Amino acid sequence: MDGNIIFGKNSVIEALSSEGREINKILISKNLHSDAKLEKIKELARQRGITYQFVAKEKFADYAEVNHQGVIAQISPVKYYDLDDFLEEPHTNETLIILDGIEDAHNLGAIIRTAVCAGVIAIVIPSRRSVQVNATVEKTSAGAVNRIKIIKVNSLSNAMEKLKKSDWWIIATDASAEDNYYDIDYTDMNTALIMGAEHAGISKSLLKASDYVIKIPMLQKFNSLNVSNAMAIITFEIVRQKITKNG
Amino acid sequence: MDGNIIFGKNSVIEALSSEGREINKILISKNLHSDAKLEKIKELARQRGITYQFVAKEKFADYAEVNHQGVIAQISPVKYYDLDDFLEEPHTNETLIILDGIEDAHNLGAIIRTAVCAGVIAIVIPSRRSVQVNATVEKTSAGAVNRIKIIKVNSLSNAMEKLKKSDWWIIATDASAEDNYYDIDYTDMNTALIMGAEHAGISKSLLKASDYVIKIPMLQKFNSLNVSNAMAIITFEIVRQKITKNG
Repeated sequence: MDGNIIFGKNSVIEALSSEGREINKILISKNLHSDAKLEKIKELARQRGITYQFVAKEKFADYAEVNHQGVIAQISPVKYYDLDDFLEEPHTNETLIILDGIEDAHNLGAIIRTAVCAGVIAIVIPSRRSVQVNATVEKTSAGAVNRIKIIKVNSLSNAMEKLKKSDWWIIATDASAEDNYYDIDYTDMNTALIMGAEHAGISKSLLKASDYVIKIPMLQKFNSLNVSNAMAIITFEIVRQKITKNG
Repeated sequence: MDGNIIFGKNSVIEALSSEGREINKILISKNLHSDAKLEKIKELARQRGITYQFVAKEKFADYAEVNHQGVIAQISPVKYYDLDDFLEEPHTNETLIILDGIEDAHNLGAIIRTAVCAGVIAIVIPSRRSVQVNATVEKTSAGAVNRIKIIKVNSLSNAMEKLKKSDWWIIATDASAEDNYYDIDYTDMNTALIMGAEHAGISKSLLKASDYVIKIPMLQKFNSLNVSNAMAIITFEIVRQKITKNG
């Protein structure tokens, strides 16, 4: 099967439920027993006029290394948003995440999934030196790539300048920062949180251009947090502040 | 090479720095250029009287799928702690994590890494229906398995009963809970946090035996959080409470 593929029942249901995604074809293994999720896939496909086809399990041989559960869909690539279009929309007290050179597809998938749960509106990734939104990212995200705006930019520095001019505050994480991430009040501003690459962290130039630099304090000195866990900790502190302020 | 192996420079340095681990032998690729980490490995090995050996890169062919960086060590398996021994030690305002049937080695590795950063004292895993601490877990944890007590038990229900009798409070996470995770004061008790399996969540019987059930509130309804991200959010809320209370 050519093109971008997604695999697994939940990911296919997510893609079928998302307006933005064009699905070309769905392949279902002949050996698959019927269950509620498979019936949902067939029903959604019928509603949207998308072909599904029962095929011999040999057709899935190319995907032996992934947990496809006997269901594969050929889809249009993720639709990336344009930063200028995004900035023309009104934004109030929102959160977006800028990823500086994430290389691992599982990390990107986990970040996107947690971002959607935390109500993050957009993820900004650079077009080079970063993993792109491929099938592994889509699968690890449990289909969350369809629920968030993914903005691809040529230059993160330029993107940061544009965000600042549009009233977004840039917050970077660095182990040497003085302020703790929970010392900032996130409830009354548009927050753009930069997270750095797995090993290198955030580029020096981007760190310098940030409005605030924060750290996650640790109770035991050790290496550092995995980037998706660090991002989860900060974005859910933002959620906590927003809920407790309004509640 | 037989036995449990660990791979990658950082993981080997961690194992060499840990008193508890018996290292049988270290293999270094002949083609490897010297750098600070490699020199550190050689120095630590000399100090501890552990043999290291330069071998042709063909020796690493079996490990082609992992990022071994030309360094592999054969080690004794992780030393598991006994729950009864653990409970005989004094514990005040500490945190441990009970994992109910985690299947994915990457998730377990990420959980252990974040647990060490959060000052969590122990991880309790069941001896069956759970991934064990294998080489992938050790690598994903960035060597953190050496910095925390890993307690293996035959029955999680029995372990919970023993913990309760020893003045630990059992806190479970479930999406249908009423209380939010940040509504609890964790600073004045021994907290045993149960996290459930990737798909099934926490077993009904364990949920029922818990002292509190909490949820992580979300700003957008979607699936659920990855188990390591959920664990990171709650344990770092505990860290935040402990630091802000004492600060």
